[in-house]
Amino acid sequence: MEAMQKTVGVILFPGFELLDVFGPLEAFGMVPDRFKLTMAAHAAGPVASAQGPQALAEHSLANCPHLDLILVPGGIGTRDEVKHAALLNSLRELSDQAEITASVCTGSALLARAGVLDGRRATSNKWAFQWVVTQGPKVKWVARARWVEDGKFWTSSGVSAGIDMALAIIAKLSSRADAEQAAVRMEYEWHSDPANDPFAKVHGLV
Amino acid sequence: MEAMQKTVGVILFPGFELLDVFGPLEAFGMVPDRFKLTMAAHAAGPVASAQGPQALAEHSLANCPHLDLILVPGGIGTRDEVKHAALLNSLRELSDQAEITASVCTGSALLARAGVLDGRRATSNKWAFQWVVTQGPKVKWVARARWVEDGKFWTSSGVSAGIDMALAIIAKLSSRADAEQAAVRMEYEWHSDPANDPFAKVHGLV
Repeated sequence: MEAMQKTVGVILFPGFELLDVFGPLEAFGMVPDRFKLTMAAHAAGPVASAQGPQALAEHSLANCPHLDLILVPGGIGTRDEVKHAALLNSLRELSDQAEITASVCTGSALLARAGVLDGRRATSNKWAFQWVVTQGPKVKWVARARWVEDGKFWTSSGVSAGIDMALAIIAKLSSRADAEQAAVRMEYEWHSDPANDPFAKVHGLV
Repeated sequence: MEAMQKTVGVILFPGFELLDVFGPLEAFGMVPDRFKLTMAAHAAGPVASAQGPQALAEHSLANCPHLDLILVPGGIGTRDEVKHAALLNSLRELSDQAEITASVCTGSALLARAGVLDGRRATSNKWAFQWVVTQGPKVKWVARARWVEDGKFWTSSGVSAGIDMALAIIAKLSSRADAEQAAVRMEYEWHSDPANDPFAKVHGLV
């Protein structure tokens, strides 16, 4: 069954948002015969989250194995990372080779600055939406969406919306039954409608 | 404001469940003037989750600073850890000194084996509930609950229920407004009723 497994790779950077990373990884991890998980960063080793606790990048971006899916989290660290050409170049290269490129929250600002979302529909976290929009003037930003799928690009709204999007990606690449089973195992009430986004209104965007 | 901060300490062990740890830490991390976050394990350093990705324990249990709240995750690793006297002794000592002792999912099996839940009401994840019950014959197990609060002991149901419980702890220790604001910032629809537990029925427990 090894050959059936797709590799999901999270791109870490200092100041990443904890749940943006570990919510989706929890979901993909519920279907271990279809998905294996890894994390990469500029350098392999510990990376501090926005909240303080550290996660371990298994690979450096320069020596990263092939990733079938890349997942880019948000977090306060994106404010610095949008200026880091090396990271943006890596994101562009990894995205070009990936079957699916996904982001959670302000991770879409990094994809936008890498240029891969130009001409595409995309969303982001609602609290920081105005800033994110400035990072991608050629992106067709969607204010009201839990997540947006456009071709191979999947972008989600803030933090916990990443879990909902990850389950939708599992439904697409594996099966709806696998996604529903994963949600039950997580005891998570999946919001499976990508248009269901109460937070656009909370933050005055619609 | 430093003196107002409480320290939330997660106890890591090999095979911990990712979201059991990082869901609650995300919630507490949304109120940084009230809570600071750390992680401890048998030895400081990398600890592999049930899903593969590794987190970094900042402290060893033997050299852990005072923890105001301890949070014990579940995960497949609990099946081994219930036999590890050193971990159970540490949990008992840390719990005795803590203001709040909390667990997510099968983390309550570890607290039960440490003896701190004897005579208390407690819950756990519903998928593994029958096994958890065998770990604490003197615990008053509650099958239908998103989480249970009994004195200073808070135990939650599976995985994502830990987020709901963490928000309730924030409401108790800080304020309801802080908990609601944290949920909005996470774009998370908080299930704030501890009795709201559809998964007890899904798993045939009620």
